[in-house]
Amino acid sequence: MLGWTIAEWLAAYRDGATPAELLRAWRAQLRNEPNRLANDARGEADAAWIAVIDDAGLDARIAALEAMCAARPHKKDVLPLYGVPFAVKDNIDVAGFDTSAGCPAFAYRPQQDAAVVERLVRAGAIPVGKANLDQFATGLVGTRTPFGIPCNTFDRSYVSGGSSSGSAVLVAQGQVPFSLGTDTAGSGRVPAGLNNLFAIKPTRGALSNVGVVPACRTLDCVSIFALDGDDALRVYDSCIGFDARDGMSRASPDGSDQDLPVTPRFGVPATPEFFGDAMSADAFDAVLAAVSASGATCVPLDFSIFDEVAALLYEGPWVAERYAAIRAFAARNEAAIDPVVRDVIFTAQRFSAADAFDGLYRLADLKRRAEGLLAQVDALLVPTAPTHLRIADVLREPIRLNSQLGKYTNFVNLLDWSAVSVPAALRVDGLPFGVTLISDSWRERALSRYARAWHATRGLPLGATQRRLPAGRTAPSATPASAAIPAAASAASATAAVPSVATVAVESIRVAVVGAHLRGMPLNHELTSRGARFVKAARTASCYRLYALPGTTPPKPGLVRGHDGAAIDLELWDVPADRFGGFVQGIPAPLGIGTLLLDDDSAVKGFICEPAALDGARDITAFGGWKAFLAEGTEASDAPSFPS
Amino acid sequence: MLGWTIAEWLAAYRDGATPAELLRAWRAQLRNEPNRLANDARGEADAAWIAVIDDAGLDARIAALEAMCAARPHKKDVLPLYGVPFAVKDNIDVAGFDTSAGCPAFAYRPQQDAAVVERLVRAGAIPVGKANLDQFATGLVGTRTPFGIPCNTFDRSYVSGGSSSGSAVLVAQGQVPFSLGTDTAGSGRVPAGLNNLFAIKPTRGALSNVGVVPACRTLDCVSIFALDGDDALRVYDSCIGFDARDGMSRASPDGSDQDLPVTPRFGVPATPEFFGDAMSADAFDAVLAAVSASGATCVPLDFSIFDEVAALLYEGPWVAERYAAIRAFAARNEAAIDPVVRDVIFTAQRFSAADAFDGLYRLADLKRRAEGLLAQVDALLVPTAPTHLRIADVLREPIRLNSQLGKYTNFVNLLDWSAVSVPAALRVDGLPFGVTLISDSWRERALSRYARAWHATRGLPLGATQRRLPAGRTAPSATPASAAIPAAASAASATAAVPSVATVAVESIRVAVVGAHLRGMPLNHELTSRGARFVKAARTASCYRLYALPGTTPPKPGLVRGHDGAAIDLELWDVPADRFGGFVQGIPAPLGIGTLLLDDDSAVKGFICEPAALDGARDITAFGGWKAFLAEGTEASDAPSFPS
Repeated sequence: MLGWTIAEWLAAYRDGATPAELLRAWRAQLRNEPNRLANDARGEADAAWIAVIDDAGLDARIAALEAMCAARPHKKDVLPLYGVPFAVKDNIDVAGFDTSAGCPAFAYRPQQDAAVVERLVRAGAIPVGKANLDQFATGLVGTRTPFGIPCNTFDRSYVSGGSSSGSAVLVAQGQVPFSLGTDTAGSGRVPAGLNNLFAIKPTRGALSNVGVVPACRTLDCVSIFALDGDDALRVYDSCIGFDARDGMSRASPDGSDQDLPVTPRFGVPATPEFFGDAMSADAFDAVLAAVSASGATCVPLDFSIFDEVAALLYEGPWVAERYAAIRAFAARNEAAIDPVVRDVIFTAQRFSAADAFDGLYRLADLKRRAEGLLAQVDALLVPTAPTHLRIADVLREPIRLNSQLGKYTNFVNLLDWSAVSVPAALRVDGLPFGVTLISDSWRERALSRYARAWHATRGLPLGATQRRLPAGRTAPSATPASAAIPAAASAASATAAVPSVATVAVESIRVAVVGAHLRGMPLNHELTSRGARFVKAARTASCYRLYALPGTTPPKPGLVRGHDGAAIDLELWDVPADRFGGFVQGIPAPLGIGTLLLDDDSAVKGFICEPAALDGARDITAFGGWKAFLAEGTEASDAPSFPS
Repeated sequence: MLGWTIAEWLAAYRDGATPAELLRAWRAQLRNEPNRLANDARGEADAAWIAVIDDAGLDARIAALEAMCAARPHKKDVLPLYGVPFAVKDNIDVAGFDTSAGCPAFAYRPQQDAAVVERLVRAGAIPVGKANLDQFATGLVGTRTPFGIPCNTFDRSYVSGGSSSGSAVLVAQGQVPFSLGTDTAGSGRVPAGLNNLFAIKPTRGALSNVGVVPACRTLDCVSIFALDGDDALRVYDSCIGFDARDGMSRASPDGSDQDLPVTPRFGVPATPEFFGDAMSADAFDAVLAAVSASGATCVPLDFSIFDEVAALLYEGPWVAERYAAIRAFAARNEAAIDPVVRDVIFTAQRFSAADAFDGLYRLADLKRRAEGLLAQVDALLVPTAPTHLRIADVLREPIRLNSQLGKYTNFVNLLDWSAVSVPAALRVDGLPFGVTLISDSWRERALSRYARAWHATRGLPLGATQRRLPAGRTAPSATPASAAIPAAASAASATAAVPSVATVAVESIRVAVVGAHLRGMPLNHELTSRGARFVKAARTASCYRLYALPGTTPPKPGLVRGHDGAAIDLELWDVPADRFGGFVQGIPAPLGIGTLLLDDDSAVKGFICEPAALDGARDITAFGGWKAFLAEGTEASDAPSFPS
């Protein structure tokens, strides 16, 4: 089962296997691959694990899972992660393991699982070991650890990226189907980009930080590594949630989960920085071409403001959070701290409280400007990491090269935005190249759905496993969308890039029009003049009757829901929300805006008609739509009364 | 016109007076009352003004107002503050005046009005001078100023409270009908409580801080002093709004404006602290008894957590914000700073950036616990200030006594809550006693509406003017609380007494509601939360039938136009045009927004109903309206299906 996705683990259980069988077999496979079981045979060469669960620990976790399902035998069928093993970055508590944060002198033995681990366990998952990291999650390279340097899974002379180095390497190698990392300035994205993984950097506070060693407590996010978007979303949905014990925890607001438009606008760096790495530059160019070909628009933007934001983190007072997190320990154990990490963290001592508040003000002002930039597009699209670094080079220049890797990640948490890193290409040298979608807070689900669909079109291997997405795995996204796009143009349809489907404003209200507002009809300008965008043609459910209303100018139909009827042709338009009121205001009696049922069972705002107007109105249901009726009418004698 | 409320100023303009006439007369009255025109005859005794507008300045402001109205002659009828003078705390910019923040060496001459002043000017108001304050808004006493000590308006031996001392004194004396203060730890509430005023301490970021000298920039709120709740709400509604130039500015969320329950639950301190002041203790007891008699429930709660929050402000790192705000100035001008203020602010130098972040974490954890406390009730009800202090005593013990005054105010801004201070009683010694309602962010409107209605039952004078609320001014709310503090002690019902002053949003869409959106009905908040304003009650033309729709939650009627029927009761509301679309979007089938005919033959947007929903619906036309039906229904057998 090495290399399996979550879906494959679940399929095996559905086929009758038990967790005891599969997980013991999994552990035996690990044992037989010495390079992969680091605590048995750890070396500088492959040190992704800090600790792996032992047989007794595994049996206990399996017993607990079985006990949880004993009372409700069908529970195992509905647990979203039933019997699925995962690795946990070693700054997140897992009962039965020390939490070292990459610093043995700091290690403690927690009494219970971190809140996010506990949620995953309740979803059926099994934590099977602790993953290596840059000490105190301070680094983007993976080299700042006394547990050996986890190497890049595509070329052992390169860094894996960090600080969630082990978490990424283990998933890329297929040792576990998913893992938890943490992300403060890119630690959950950079190693995903460097190892061909799908990663979600959630909104701050979306996942509980109870039981997580803080780096910068106002910025830290537990993050998710997986082989593909289905798995990452499944894990995210299983562990998201408000936690009253965590002062930074937040409940997700309503209405934040709307999909990206079918053909989104992406903000891309006008002058992308690759630190001289032509292969990454070429890869990014190719990716942008592919994204554009899929129907998206790439809008070059001035990204210099993000460097100003990042300066607050690297040269400003936020480093004091890292110091605040460990200062009691550091006062007694300075020599136990990695020298590079220590030099970084101890710079905090030069910042005063007034500096910290000045930093907060500066960030607030920068955030306003950054929001203005983001408002021009649906999301940012950036390289996850601008280059690959050789381990030898990083050891020689540990600070400067480290900061290069954070170029496109380090501003996101400060701005309270969400991000999703997705495999995008293999460079000409065979090393992976990932891109990251970035948007406002609480957009990680929507970004993930878009990225998942796009990922499915790329033909890439899964991590470093040399396996590919199982055929049909994300089939709904890969087939041409057309009529299958539900009212909520799902991420699925995104990749299909139906040409007729125009950009949909995020803050818009969808309305179904059936008569004079249809394209080419006399009142269509009431939509277009308000910046409304055509979405697609659709039809009502088969319970509507359509009437030609007498005495209306221009001629208009009335749509009436009843017990029988037919599916009536209509068009869906997205109207900017702040102008929808004016549109409604302009609609004369007997028409109004109510709710229509469509033939895909979705509901949408649309034209309804007062029954009083139907006296003497001609029932034109049989035509199936206003335009069809007009076309017939034009051939008949009453054409003049229906000017188009 | 000294002592006039805003409503009285507006009434005078309606009766034909011009701003030139009234405002020049107002200024002449000030001149004839030497104690009230401080810049002509300032002394230690009465120093509420730092500067008053001169004749040329007044003429220029009047000319600008006239120019604004010239193009649209009816504009003066709809400007909510047309020609109303107001005072501005001297840490808020007003063009034409220095901004001193209470420190002459710090003073600068701004080029333009602060954003909040600018909004008020656009609403027709006239800034007429700058008000004294505790230097750098650091104090709750009003004694920390080189411009003379503004005395309490009820007894000159007592402090006025601060830091917005002058702003409160000027309104209490009736020199201006309203004023702006600022509030970081109680500066906008304490002087209201000590001078018998109605004050709104808005949510952080609700009012722009552009052009305001910071005290603690993450906590500062511009605040409003007025003689009564009508005026305070009118001012609030005229100057609230997002300002992209202010990093701390926030847009108000939808759905936060729901009224308090008719019989709310108030959390009160289980062991209230009055620092030995028996008269304030007695006053609070009497107020709680009156509140309980009005139908509210007072729930004693353990308030000790709020002391922990306040400690962050007084003994913790937040003082560094005050230092950050002036450190460049202080480095060159230490001797120019009030010694007490300097000693307070300079303690900031001992806090590190790590301390500041530790404070943020501690606050986040305390906020969680405080939210748990608040969740048990609808609002907190506390003394605004626990005692009155003699000026002589404060000068002798400036730090300890100052902190006493903040006992029930200092935690609110840190917790990101809103508050409204309302006159509650006169103590046996004749000094005023105020109480403050406190709740979550964005609740200031709802708190103000409740407080306004309760205030109208108290029979108190307005400020120190010895005038009382004009008879019938808030008549609907003034009848003994319980049922009369309407589900909507609505802005509407208040302005109904002065119909022609009712504020009308210029760009709004009028909609007729007939059922669950009526005042006091379960969905009324869908209007109020969007800033919609009640216009008036009205009726349809006599061709409508009303049906009780089966299976709707909350219960809803359907209105159907036909050949016969009756005039059905409805309410007209003006909804801001840009938010009308969202209102329409939220209306479920079978209802929609179409066009209704009224009994005066006018047409207006309003609720219509799909005919398909009428199967099995009860025809309730004979009741003449939804509320009449519900009232009857409650007494009849079908009550259970229509819970009110």
